[in-house]
Amino acid sequence: MKLIYAPQSPFARKVRAAAIELGLADRFELEFVQLTPGQKNRDYASSVNPLRKLPALVLDDGQTIVDSTVICEYLDALAGGGKLVPVSGPERWRILTQHAVAQGMMDAMILVRYETWLRPEPHRWAEWIDDQWDKALSGLAWFESRAEIALRQGGGRIDLSQLALACGLGYLDFRFPETGWRERFPKLAAWYGVVLNRPSLAQTKPETPPAR
Amino acid sequence: MKLIYAPQSPFARKVRAAAIELGLADRFELEFVQLTPGQKNRDYASSVNPLRKLPALVLDDGQTIVDSTVICEYLDALAGGGKLVPVSGPERWRILTQHAVAQGMMDAMILVRYETWLRPEPHRWAEWIDDQWDKALSGLAWFESRAEIALRQGGGRIDLSQLALACGLGYLDFRFPETGWRERFPKLAAWYGVVLNRPSLAQTKPETPPAR
Repeated sequence: MKLIYAPQSPFARKVRAAAIELGLADRFELEFVQLTPGQKNRDYASSVNPLRKLPALVLDDGQTIVDSTVICEYLDALAGGGKLVPVSGPERWRILTQHAVAQGMMDAMILVRYETWLRPEPHRWAEWIDDQWDKALSGLAWFESRAEIALRQGGGRIDLSQLALACGLGYLDFRFPETGWRERFPKLAAWYGVVLNRPSLAQTKPETPPAR
Repeated sequence: MKLIYAPQSPFARKVRAAAIELGLADRFELEFVQLTPGQKNRDYASSVNPLRKLPALVLDDGQTIVDSTVICEYLDALAGGGKLVPVSGPERWRILTQHAVAQGMMDAMILVRYETWLRPEPHRWAEWIDDQWDKALSGLAWFESRAEIALRQGGGRIDLSQLALACGLGYLDFRFPETGWRERFPKLAAWYGVVLNRPSLAQTKPETPPAR
């Protein structure tokens, strides 16, 4: 198998971390693809994903799986199932709901990144930036308010929503290091300080991609 | 159960259509909530979804499930499982991959909508609009190119990716009626003309919400 990724993508990181947690990291090779936001990237769009998003998993038979959530579920099934997300029962829906919130927080942060980095200054709109930040921070507050359940790690394991949350917090530190989120969300900060030591997260820290 | 929705949301429509397909539509009441994009909608954010997105399913025990994909999977499980998405096997990953592409197309169309309707004119950026349109249209081209597999309906059933695609096409007609997509993608157009007759889609046509 081949995982198409970029080292700065929090969604690709979630998949790489999931593979390490599941003991499957040696089952695929990594292929770095540099997609330029706002560019058409036609080769990638036509051969891998028309949305031009990362990551994508290409199976040995040529089948391509997107997006990051589907890939994680695929890897979980490959590892026997139920390790990152229970296959049934109330805990499945709790964890997938938390995961959806963490994903939406990352989406909001990436929209802020595009607005403040990609978009020419005259076309930026302060209210949009404020609105996306509010979503991301409201998501952090939501996790903080239910930390005792959401951040619990039975048997030292980590679930898919927690991996997504950790990747989101890593993206926050990577792109927006001045937010001061640790002071506002101390339970999240304490939890994050511990989970960052897991090999799955320690080995996948976000990096600026090499210049072409 | 209570489904929080808005009549113009393609994601809420997908859930309502899924419930009809699964014979579960009478298991929940619908509650219309008007969320104003760009507004904080604090009550909804704190009590339902910090991302302020629709739909959300509130279970009788108070547990809230988001997002639309998780709700559809929950309803599928409630109906016995494997009806909208196979619970395992290659078809599961094919359909979830298609579903992710259809979702991304809807996300791109909604970003165009926000850019051209919500955002003040001086802050609009033509390249962003072009880029999002390109994603949506590339997604349509992707479905068109694999129509024989992606649009196949075994036993007259419809899968989750097809429901998402139909809701995306419905949103396209609803918000951007002048795109001429039917001429460019004739296989999709023929398929859509037929599936629109399914009660699940006929009964959930997008509507402008009532004025407050």
